[in-house]
Amino acid sequence: MRGIEAIALDVDGVLTDGAFWWGPDGQEWKRFSFTDVMGVSLARKAGLIVGLISGEDSPLIARYAAKMGITDIATNCKQKADALRTFAARWQMDLSRICFMGDDVNDLPALQIAGLAAAPANARPAVLQQAGFVSTFRGGDGAVRELVDAILKAKATPEPQ
Amino acid sequence: MRGIEAIALDVDGVLTDGAFWWGPDGQEWKRFSFTDVMGVSLARKAGLIVGLISGEDSPLIARYAAKMGITDIATNCKQKADALRTFAARWQMDLSRICFMGDDVNDLPALQIAGLAAAPANARPAVLQQAGFVSTFRGGDGAVRELVDAILKAKATPEPQ
Amino acid sequence: MRGIEAIALDVDGVLTDGAFWWGPDGQEWKRFSFTDVMGVSLARKAGLIVGLISGEDSPLIARYAAKMGITDIATNCKQKADALRTFAARWQMDLSRICFMGDDVNDLPALQIAGLAAAPANARPAVLQQAGFVSTFRGGDGAVRELVDAILKAKATPEPQ
Amino acid sequence: MRGIEAIALDVDGVLTDGAFWWGPDGQEWKRFSFTDVMGVSLARKAGLIVGLISGEDSPLIARYAAKMGITDIATNCKQKADALRTFAARWQMDLSRICFMGDDVNDLPALQIAGLAAAPANARPAVLQQAGFVSTFRGGDGAVRELVDAILKAKATPEPQ
Repeated sequence: MRGIEAIALDVDGVLTDGAFWWGPDGQEWKRFSFTDVMGVSLARKAGLIVGLISGEDSPLIARYAAKMGITDIATNCKQKADALRTFAARWQMDLSRICFMGDDVNDLPALQIAGLAAAPANARPAVLQQAGFVSTFRGGDGAVRELVDAILKAKATPEPQ
Repeated sequence: MRGIEAIALDVDGVLTDGAFWWGPDGQEWKRFSFTDVMGVSLARKAGLIVGLISGEDSPLIARYAAKMGITDIATNCKQKADALRTFAARWQMDLSRICFMGDDVNDLPALQIAGLAAAPANARPAVLQQAGFVSTFRGGDGAVRELVDAILKAKATPEPQ
Repeated sequence: MRGIEAIALDVDGVLTDGAFWWGPDGQEWKRFSFTDVMGVSLARKAGLIVGLISGEDSPLIARYAAKMGITDIATNCKQKADALRTFAARWQMDLSRICFMGDDVNDLPALQIAGLAAAPANARPAVLQQAGFVSTFRGGDGAVRELVDAILKAKATPEPQ
Repeated sequence: MRGIEAIALDVDGVLTDGAFWWGPDGQEWKRFSFTDVMGVSLARKAGLIVGLISGEDSPLIARYAAKMGITDIATNCKQKADALRTFAARWQMDLSRICFMGDDVNDLPALQIAGLAAAPANARPAVLQQAGFVSTFRGGDGAVRELVDAILKAKATPEPQ
C-alpha cells in the first residue's frame, strides 16, 4: 500500500450503497455518505490522485466529482480496465501505483490490472476473491474511508529495513 | 435448477426492499439495487426469459422493465398464479421450466405451481416454507442476483451421469 | 389476544422506521413497507377495526389511511390515551378489546390502558417494559404485520377447555 | 454527567445517519429520526441548552433547529472547537458543563475541550477513543436520544455521599 499514488473508484456500490431510488417522473436518487466524502478529502489532501470510473451515466457522478474537486471521471464505461489504463496514462503513472475499488463482476478486469485491488465488504463473491484489500464496511458506508485510512497509515509507517 | 428457462419476479420485496417512500404531494419512491440489475442482465444475456408479476400498479414497474429490456409485465395482479400461467403460455413453456420469486402470502399460489419456488431471506414465514430456494440476501439487496447466479451456475455444471 | 377486536397504531416508528427525510424546500418523506400494508389489510379482512393515533400532523397519515380504507384517524395528538378512549367510545368497545402498538414514551399512557400493549423490537426501553407483545421486527419493517399475524392466529386457535 | 448543562451536537452522522441522498437537479436530502427529536425535546424540557455545530452549510440545519426551537446554530464550521467556545461564551458557561457529540476526525478538537465527549456507536475509531460516552446506537438512529436519557438519568440520581 505504501507505493499507492492514486485511487480510482467505481461509484455505485462503492461510493453508494449500490441502490437507486426512483420517483414517479423518472427521477433517480442515490445515497452517499460523509464518512466517504471525508475519506476522499483526506486522500486528496495527502497528495493522492482520486478518479471515478463508473459504468453508469448519471449527472450525480459529475456533481460528486465537482463537490470533491475530482477531475478524472469516466462514465458510461463498459471497459473499466481501459478506463483505468487511460487514467494511468494521463498521469504517466504505472498501474502498480494505482488502487482500484470495485464491487461487481464488471469491475474484475480493472481490479486485475490495478496495483491494489480493493472491495467493500458486500462486494460480489468473485470480487472479494480478487481483492487484496477487503473493507470491513459496506459500500457507501465507509468502505472508501477505511481504504484511504489504511493507505495513508501505510504511507506514514516507516519502511521496514 | 438446470432446467429453468425463465424467471418471473414479484417486484415489491423482491426487486425492492419492500418499502415505499411517500412525499408530501402523493409521490411514491422505491429502492432498487444495481446488484439485482446486474443479475437480471446476466440472466437475459444467458438466454433466460425474465418477467415481472406485481400486485401493485406503479409507473416504476414499467420503467424498470424498460431499463432492463423486459417485455413480460403483469401489474395490478390479484391472481399471480394466473399471471404465471399466462406468462408460460405466451412462451409455450411448461411451468416446470419457470422459476418464480416472491416474498408474501399473495405470492403463494404462483410459488406453488412454479417449477422452482424462490424467496428472499426476509420473506414471510409461509413463503420461506414453500420455497425450494431461499436467498441468503434480502429483497432489493441481492436476492435476485444470488438466484440468477445459482441458476446460471447449475446450468453451467455438467449433468451428473 | 383472542379477545382483541381492534388495533390502534402509532404511525412514526410503528408503521415507519421512525425516520423522516427532509428535502431542500421543506418537503418531508417517510418510509413505509408492504409487509405492514398487507398486515393492516389482513386485519381488516378478518373483521378487526384498525385506527391510527399519531402525535404528528402530516398529510402522509391521511394518505396512508385512505390507501388502507382506515377511517379512524387521530393526528397531532398530544394525549394518546384520550385518543384511544375516543376510539373505543366511537365503536362502543371496551378498552380491553383494543390493542395499541407504540414505540416511544409519549405512547406509554395509551399502552397502559389498552387491552394489549404492543411494541416493535426497537421501541424505547420504557415501552418494551410496558409491552405485553414485543415484535421481533423493527418499526416499519414488519412489526405491525407480525402483530396482526399473531392476533389472527390466536383468534383462529380453539380456546383451551 | 450530573454537571452537564448544555449539549452541542454535530449534525451529519450524529442527528443523521451520515448519508445524503442526491436527486437529479442538485437537491439534497437527509435522514433524521423521531427518537432523536424526542431526545432533543426531553433535553430542552429538562432545562438543558441544545446547540448545533456543523461543518456543512445546509438549509436543513436551520429547519431542524426551527422545528426543535434551537437558537444556537453554527454552520459551515471549519473550526468546531472555536464554535464550541463561542457557544460556551454566549451562555457564560464553563466548557466543563458542556457535552459535545461528534462522529468524525474534524470533531476531535471540540471533543477534546468539551466537558463530556460523546460519540455514536459508528463514529470513526479516533473519535471512539476520545469519547467518554459511546452510544450503543448509530448516528441518526437513537445516539442522541440515548445520550440525553443518560444525562437526565444521571442528573436525577442523588449524588453519592
